[in-house]
Amino acid sequence: MPKRIAAFGEVMMRLQVPGYDLLSQGNTLKYSFSGTGVNVVSALARYGHMGKLITRLPENALGDAAEAYLRKLWIDTSLVQRHGKYMGLYFLENGFGSRPSRVTYTNRLESSFNTAPQDAYDYEAIAAEIDALHFCGIALAMNDGVRQHMKGLAKAVKQRGGTVIFDCNYRPSLWGDNGYIKANPHYKEMLELSDIVMMNEQDALYTLGINTTKERREDQLEELLPQVMERYQISVIAGTHRSIHSSNEHSLRGFLLRGGQFTYSDMLTFSVYDRIGAGDAYASGIIHGALEGFAAEKIVRFAAAAAMLAHTVSGDTPMASESEVLRAMTASAGDVER
Amino acid sequence: MPKRIAAFGEVMMRLQVPGYDLLSQGNTLKYSFSGTGVNVVSALARYGHMGKLITRLPENALGDAAEAYLRKLWIDTSLVQRHGKYMGLYFLENGFGSRPSRVTYTNRLESSFNTAPQDAYDYEAIAAEIDALHFCGIALAMNDGVRQHMKGLAKAVKQRGGTVIFDCNYRPSLWGDNGYIKANPHYKEMLELSDIVMMNEQDALYTLGINTTKERREDQLEELLPQVMERYQISVIAGTHRSIHSSNEHSLRGFLLRGGQFTYSDMLTFSVYDRIGAGDAYASGIIHGALEGFAAEKIVRFAAAAAMLAHTVSGDTPMASESEVLRAMTASAGDVER
Amino acid sequence: MPKRIAAFGEVMMRLQVPGYDLLSQGNTLKYSFSGTGVNVVSALARYGHMGKLITRLPENALGDAAEAYLRKLWIDTSLVQRHGKYMGLYFLENGFGSRPSRVTYTNRLESSFNTAPQDAYDYEAIAAEIDALHFCGIALAMNDGVRQHMKGLAKAVKQRGGTVIFDCNYRPSLWGDNGYIKANPHYKEMLELSDIVMMNEQDALYTLGINTTKERREDQLEELLPQVMERYQISVIAGTHRSIHSSNEHSLRGFLLRGGQFTYSDMLTFSVYDRIGAGDAYASGIIHGALEGFAAEKIVRFAAAAAMLAHTVSGDTPMASESEVLRAMTASAGDVER
Amino acid sequence: MPKRIAAFGEVMMRLQVPGYDLLSQGNTLKYSFSGTGVNVVSALARYGHMGKLITRLPENALGDAAEAYLRKLWIDTSLVQRHGKYMGLYFLENGFGSRPSRVTYTNRLESSFNTAPQDAYDYEAIAAEIDALHFCGIALAMNDGVRQHMKGLAKAVKQRGGTVIFDCNYRPSLWGDNGYIKANPHYKEMLELSDIVMMNEQDALYTLGINTTKERREDQLEELLPQVMERYQISVIAGTHRSIHSSNEHSLRGFLLRGGQFTYSDMLTFSVYDRIGAGDAYASGIIHGALEGFAAEKIVRFAAAAAMLAHTVSGDTPMASESEVLRAMTASAGDVER
Amino acid sequence: MPKRIAAFGEVMMRLQVPGYDLLSQGNTLKYSFSGTGVNVVSALARYGHMGKLITRLPENALGDAAEAYLRKLWIDTSLVQRHGKYMGLYFLENGFGSRPSRVTYTNRLESSFNTAPQDAYDYEAIAAEIDALHFCGIALAMNDGVRQHMKGLAKAVKQRGGTVIFDCNYRPSLWGDNGYIKANPHYKEMLELSDIVMMNEQDALYTLGINTTKERREDQLEELLPQVMERYQISVIAGTHRSIHSSNEHSLRGFLLRGGQFTYSDMLTFSVYDRIGAGDAYASGIIHGALEGFAAEKIVRFAAAAAMLAHTVSGDTPMASESEVLRAMTASAGDVER
Amino acid sequence: MPKRIAAFGEVMMRLQVPGYDLLSQGNTLKYSFSGTGVNVVSALARYGHMGKLITRLPENALGDAAEAYLRKLWIDTSLVQRHGKYMGLYFLENGFGSRPSRVTYTNRLESSFNTAPQDAYDYEAIAAEIDALHFCGIALAMNDGVRQHMKGLAKAVKQRGGTVIFDCNYRPSLWGDNGYIKANPHYKEMLELSDIVMMNEQDALYTLGINTTKERREDQLEELLPQVMERYQISVIAGTHRSIHSSNEHSLRGFLLRGGQFTYSDMLTFSVYDRIGAGDAYASGIIHGALEGFAAEKIVRFAAAAAMLAHTVSGDTPMASESEVLRAMTASAGDVER
Repeated sequence: MPKRIAAFGEVMMRLQVPGYDLLSQGNTLKYSFSGTGVNVVSALARYGHMGKLITRLPENALGDAAEAYLRKLWIDTSLVQRHGKYMGLYFLENGFGSRPSRVTYTNRLESSFNTAPQDAYDYEAIAAEIDALHFCGIALAMNDGVRQHMKGLAKAVKQRGGTVIFDCNYRPSLWGDNGYIKANPHYKEMLELSDIVMMNEQDALYTLGINTTKERREDQLEELLPQVMERYQISVIAGTHRSIHSSNEHSLRGFLLRGGQFTYSDMLTFSVYDRIGAGDAYASGIIHGALEGFAAEKIVRFAAAAAMLAHTVSGDTPMASESEVLRAMTASAGDVER
Repeated sequence: MPKRIAAFGEVMMRLQVPGYDLLSQGNTLKYSFSGTGVNVVSALARYGHMGKLITRLPENALGDAAEAYLRKLWIDTSLVQRHGKYMGLYFLENGFGSRPSRVTYTNRLESSFNTAPQDAYDYEAIAAEIDALHFCGIALAMNDGVRQHMKGLAKAVKQRGGTVIFDCNYRPSLWGDNGYIKANPHYKEMLELSDIVMMNEQDALYTLGINTTKERREDQLEELLPQVMERYQISVIAGTHRSIHSSNEHSLRGFLLRGGQFTYSDMLTFSVYDRIGAGDAYASGIIHGALEGFAAEKIVRFAAAAAMLAHTVSGDTPMASESEVLRAMTASAGDVER
Repeated sequence: MPKRIAAFGEVMMRLQVPGYDLLSQGNTLKYSFSGTGVNVVSALARYGHMGKLITRLPENALGDAAEAYLRKLWIDTSLVQRHGKYMGLYFLENGFGSRPSRVTYTNRLESSFNTAPQDAYDYEAIAAEIDALHFCGIALAMNDGVRQHMKGLAKAVKQRGGTVIFDCNYRPSLWGDNGYIKANPHYKEMLELSDIVMMNEQDALYTLGINTTKERREDQLEELLPQVMERYQISVIAGTHRSIHSSNEHSLRGFLLRGGQFTYSDMLTFSVYDRIGAGDAYASGIIHGALEGFAAEKIVRFAAAAAMLAHTVSGDTPMASESEVLRAMTASAGDVER
Repeated sequence: MPKRIAAFGEVMMRLQVPGYDLLSQGNTLKYSFSGTGVNVVSALARYGHMGKLITRLPENALGDAAEAYLRKLWIDTSLVQRHGKYMGLYFLENGFGSRPSRVTYTNRLESSFNTAPQDAYDYEAIAAEIDALHFCGIALAMNDGVRQHMKGLAKAVKQRGGTVIFDCNYRPSLWGDNGYIKANPHYKEMLELSDIVMMNEQDALYTLGINTTKERREDQLEELLPQVMERYQISVIAGTHRSIHSSNEHSLRGFLLRGGQFTYSDMLTFSVYDRIGAGDAYASGIIHGALEGFAAEKIVRFAAAAAMLAHTVSGDTPMASESEVLRAMTASAGDVER
Repeated sequence: MPKRIAAFGEVMMRLQVPGYDLLSQGNTLKYSFSGTGVNVVSALARYGHMGKLITRLPENALGDAAEAYLRKLWIDTSLVQRHGKYMGLYFLENGFGSRPSRVTYTNRLESSFNTAPQDAYDYEAIAAEIDALHFCGIALAMNDGVRQHMKGLAKAVKQRGGTVIFDCNYRPSLWGDNGYIKANPHYKEMLELSDIVMMNEQDALYTLGINTTKERREDQLEELLPQVMERYQISVIAGTHRSIHSSNEHSLRGFLLRGGQFTYSDMLTFSVYDRIGAGDAYASGIIHGALEGFAAEKIVRFAAAAAMLAHTVSGDTPMASESEVLRAMTASAGDVER
Repeated sequence: MPKRIAAFGEVMMRLQVPGYDLLSQGNTLKYSFSGTGVNVVSALARYGHMGKLITRLPENALGDAAEAYLRKLWIDTSLVQRHGKYMGLYFLENGFGSRPSRVTYTNRLESSFNTAPQDAYDYEAIAAEIDALHFCGIALAMNDGVRQHMKGLAKAVKQRGGTVIFDCNYRPSLWGDNGYIKANPHYKEMLELSDIVMMNEQDALYTLGINTTKERREDQLEELLPQVMERYQISVIAGTHRSIHSSNEHSLRGFLLRGGQFTYSDMLTFSVYDRIGAGDAYASGIIHGALEGFAAEKIVRFAAAAAMLAHTVSGDTPMASESEVLRAMTASAGDVER
């Protein structure tokens, strides 16, 4: 049954040098608008849910372009606010083979989203309109104002019986020096409120500071995540392990922890066209599967296939329908579809 | 010795989303004009023959663009007629890795070609100008008018001692429900008139409805095709077996049945840039080899190399010269040619 | 006060050769989706109304792209149906100076919209959701099925007290031989149901067959339109007179007939970047002004300015906000806005 | 009645910076292939004649591209030879307003065309295949080898009763110091052989060295050209006077001298999109009109309209059909053609 | 004699929507790097001077691209510092006809340039390397740190006998509420240090707060600027009056006040391709003429022609050489230069 | 310690068909400027040295564009001369998979560089400004004038104690029939003057004509190069062995001979985006390592990593910084860098 799922998060403008030129070689950029929340609710809208975004965009031509773009991504923009003058942007230079992709950010802290005042969002009213709400560790890294909104919204949703989803997504460059120490209390607070959590053993080790004697990441995973699940009363924890063979070829294995049980997808190895946002495709697959009540194995295989497909489309945002993901789960590579 | 080879078939406009965007992501298309007949006679013209197309194009800007494009492809357009208002078109979204390419057709049944009246073509006059004539199963699927022209032309060519070439090319979506049953009598009639036929075991099994107890496609092939050859008095039957590893990597092995003898090319594995039309490159190689009197092994290796190269150029239509195909047959991959 | 305004009409794919190349010179196309209804409700959405489209789009990649595009244009797509396989498209070659622009259509009669079955739309339910509904003479030219839906919807809206808007927009090439005679009864039927009508003296003369002894089009206008208004009990009639100096420079004067009174805008002379759809911008301005209760002079000046601005943006669909139109009404050309 | 018209001349590759960038600003070029002969016979082919080109192109990828391009322009390439390695090219930076367009040539003297050996062309055989042959003063400036071929071909055509057409087209930069003195005997020799000549008063004054006491160019024209006509027994002389208001707006008046009588077109003033090659459009109009037996006024108006339209299309080569030129002669600027 | 001329100012990234699309319509941007200082010293480098830029760029891919771009513009980058992470950027949507161009800025206050510490520049060392230094009112609007650097550098240059150039360039949106009052003391301080000043009557009236009873801007100019010149002991004051007919056509008249004498250029009317930065072209012409000792009339005509040409090239930065400007001063519009 | 390193060599314009189209399919080209010398000194400038180019460029728009491009590549152009009208250019069609890339040259012998007069370069003055000078076998193939300059410059640098670098780079197509015999004395003369030499066993065998009984290229290398080193008193010899798996995948192993000792890099296998110029990246790595005093193994691994990275960027010219090469030496492929 379709759900009303919202995400709270910043919209960024992505400015990508076409092909494989560097910024210092090219003279054109391809632009689009994205963000973890954008990617997740757009993917969920393609799976048949209503996907809403809770954010603020500037009141100018950039904000107009962003809002139009969100609508094109099938996102319901009725909760999008228009205030202020700025939005964050990032430049992307595509890697090739042995040369990694490179992202350069502009100053996002002055964005409409990151400077929203205390009373910007009516937590109760928003919670009343949605069944589930998605948050991400990137927003948590911004500032106290954003963190207040995250916690306020999460509490309101929880209280009304909605589902709180949290993607840990720890980005070292955003937290700065002693980042894990700064981040720790906020992550804990979010986990207390969360039902579905995207994380892996790194988050447990570093952000939550739980110790292990294991060395292989698979062993660490199986030791640490059940502890987190129990400690924070989380119903679903999921994530991926990724191996990078070259800028153009990756492998990925998804895992799901539910009811005390780990379930894994096959290790998928695939050609990569656009790596950014593929993690959000995985998260969307998990959320869709969990909300629709899929069996554990179907959830994790669906999410892994969704992530794999997201590497084959341009842009941060997944574009596959449910039926396309289902086919990618089972079928081998196919010929032209006519 | 160069031959005068014609093809009877529809010209389609191909509208391709550049790069790997979907139609719902992009805003530009790259266009060209193609069709099985176009591809085959253009390739044969590059091998030194005179390549003519027998078709109808609309009398408007689209028809002008199509005819200019055919000329650029080295095709003699003196048998191209200009009447009516419409032509078929198809949209192509390139696949990548685990995501297949996707083709979306517009309604082609109202095209100038598919609505040509009974007396549109002077079969005798056309037959007098050519040494060989190529037909394709796609046209056979259109309507009775087109089928009448195919049979009329084939008979006229046969009667004058010319060579009739038929590529079975059964497309399920074109024949609709109970397609094999509808198609069967028309395929039989065409095979009665044909000297060189492109087909594989699938066509024998389903379109012609011949039974087999074999399971491997190679065994089915070797059992069924000699029966077809004998039944319809065909001098050459050829085709390929293709395996698809990803949208970007395929394998292909060509076969040739002549004088009761099967000859195979090596299994070629190669990178794929543009898969559409590669089967026509294979057919052109077979036709060229057969008309030029190559030995069986040279024919099938030439055709397979031509098909492989056709996957490396953009557009439906093969671009390689005879010397380029010959080099691709023998040489390993080479450095930049200066 | 914002209204809920819908349009009933076909969505076409526009395929434009970039710059000033002909189709036979270029190899790329820029695509977008438009239609009279699209243009009108998108413009009205930018003026603050809710703009809905009542149409059918194919259930494939083209339909996906079209629906996403409509959403990007700020159109509410909740009344858009997805059935069938085809949609109409047109190719546009831009004119320059003494060379006129050229449009080439594909066969639209097989489109999802034009083949909608009798029970495709629930007239009553739709009428219940909207305050006003816009129709266009282009749709009226299609076939009996479409005409039935137009009249059915118009009646339902009228019955519920909504506003029926009709843009005469007679296109000779769509009606064929004896077009005016064929069109006449359908135009009359639509005018009986309409409150706001876009037309000029040509429509009265030829489509409605009213005679005049006047020769100047201005005099014909002032003689004929009041007769039409009275005969069909129409509350607002509006339109434009256009003069074309070159592909790149036009003049336009808007008129409005209301309460027995003609009001005219100044004759505006302006540079033309993209002429298509500018008439829809004028219509949107009239509708907005009429529904918002502007004074007659403000209505006609607003609509003329909206039309002028629509010539300066790419694509068929107007992009200006209400404040941009208001500024264009009063201000002389301005410097860069920073 | 359609004629077989050939042109003898070099094919150049045109490399144009898109838009209005300078070479030092941009990083892409749009390429095409042209030349006076190319432009003239392509235009004549669009008017229904058979247009052939007599030239030499290199035996490599550049030559392949050029020959394909000529075919796309509707040119019969059966007289095109393929030898050597080089072809001339030129870079074009578009001017805008007060900034003139700029052309930069590469060294063309080593081109396949300009290094054709003495026995490259079989003058008699070529003359037997054509009704008229066009030459241009640009080729005359190249070297003795090219001049020999021009004179040999002209004599052969003349002897068989064909029509020799010569466009004076004196380019100072090609003849170098004392250019008029060097050019004079060659121009005289060509004029002796010519039936239709494109020239104006400048050619008479400087290249032929005829004196005048008149000062206005119109008066010089009327004094000098009849002397030239008589002296060289030329049946038609035609040309234009051009005024340049800005890079984007020119005026042009055509004249025709035939049977001792001057006929003039109106002075046409028009927007300019691509000025290069417009003179060849005028020449093609004159040739078409003269060969088809139009009345003098129709010839000169047709040629002037063809020249005007040629300023509105991209590329050096005219694209208009006869009916499009006829419409441009009479009609005022028109709205979009649907 | 070539001079060593520097400018102190911020480098901005310009992100322009190609053609005439809005940000909400397009998906690509063309980027370049500019700024008043960039434009001025690049133009002066094309006139034969050494043009240096004093600025700070981020230490990342954006900074690399900017510095490479400055070098391509012929700017000496030996005084460019690389620190920090951000740079200002602006989006440009081209206007057309009655629709004005629109600029949207991102938050520039956090840029490397605007956050340079107190000791970032060694004023004395810099002053020792240059003959003249250019400042602009845009930088003056940034913050106290930037203002300190401007004044420190100006004093150091003045003290060593160098020439201080100041372009008033008051931008209301940068100074905010009560902007004139805030700006006044800083403008006065800069004028005290300046030798060559770009300003007009608006600056005198509003920024400096001098009263007038005159109403026509020409009269205000002639009354107010001599007072400013005397009060601040400025040797040259220059500026322009611009009229905007449409986004594509402007008029401009330059003036120069020197030795108590006003000199004016003709009123130039011209087609506009890219308006931004044309004021800097005018300033560069004035600076070049003043430093080279041109007569007053030649200075102002040179500067006006340079400004006119700058409207015809893409990008903010002038591209004309001295000889191109000189030709534009005298010649009427010319034909293609071959 | 940064060195002043120059290269003597021709600048070529590269005109590349975008994507994988052939010249006869496309209509746009991407252009840049390169050459062995350009690539080497640009790479060395990115490693922190001062990179100068000694060359001649035409005095026109092409030369302007080339010089601006060199500056953008971080090259010091103070030794670049501007004379003459022509420069060499080459067209590049990208290969794909089994289809090799193809280069087509224009006639370069008339270029400004190749027609420089005897007194064009002041050898002594140039030698005084630089620490090392790079030459290439391509220039040696041009004509006696160029060879005279090479030897004159090499002698002057050698005499002042500078380092002479010579890249053998024998191109059969440039030397023509009996090329090795023609080339032999010139190669010997250059080797006499050289300190660092890029070559492999092929050069020793064919250009220098030294015999071997070995068959494997590795054995030939180890037998022949020490003989060359001793005979010509060269301090460093280096080069690569390359294997080509497809147009898109190559392997490469670098070697270094110094102090009688061979050192090898690992065999690197990598995806290829743009193969041209990768040999120059290897040479730059060797030069940088040798001049900076790296250990032999670090030199050869640095050079091999630099070559590998050069295959991943567009254009002939390497773009990697020293730190990027160092990371590519050690790290496995990495994820997006944020």
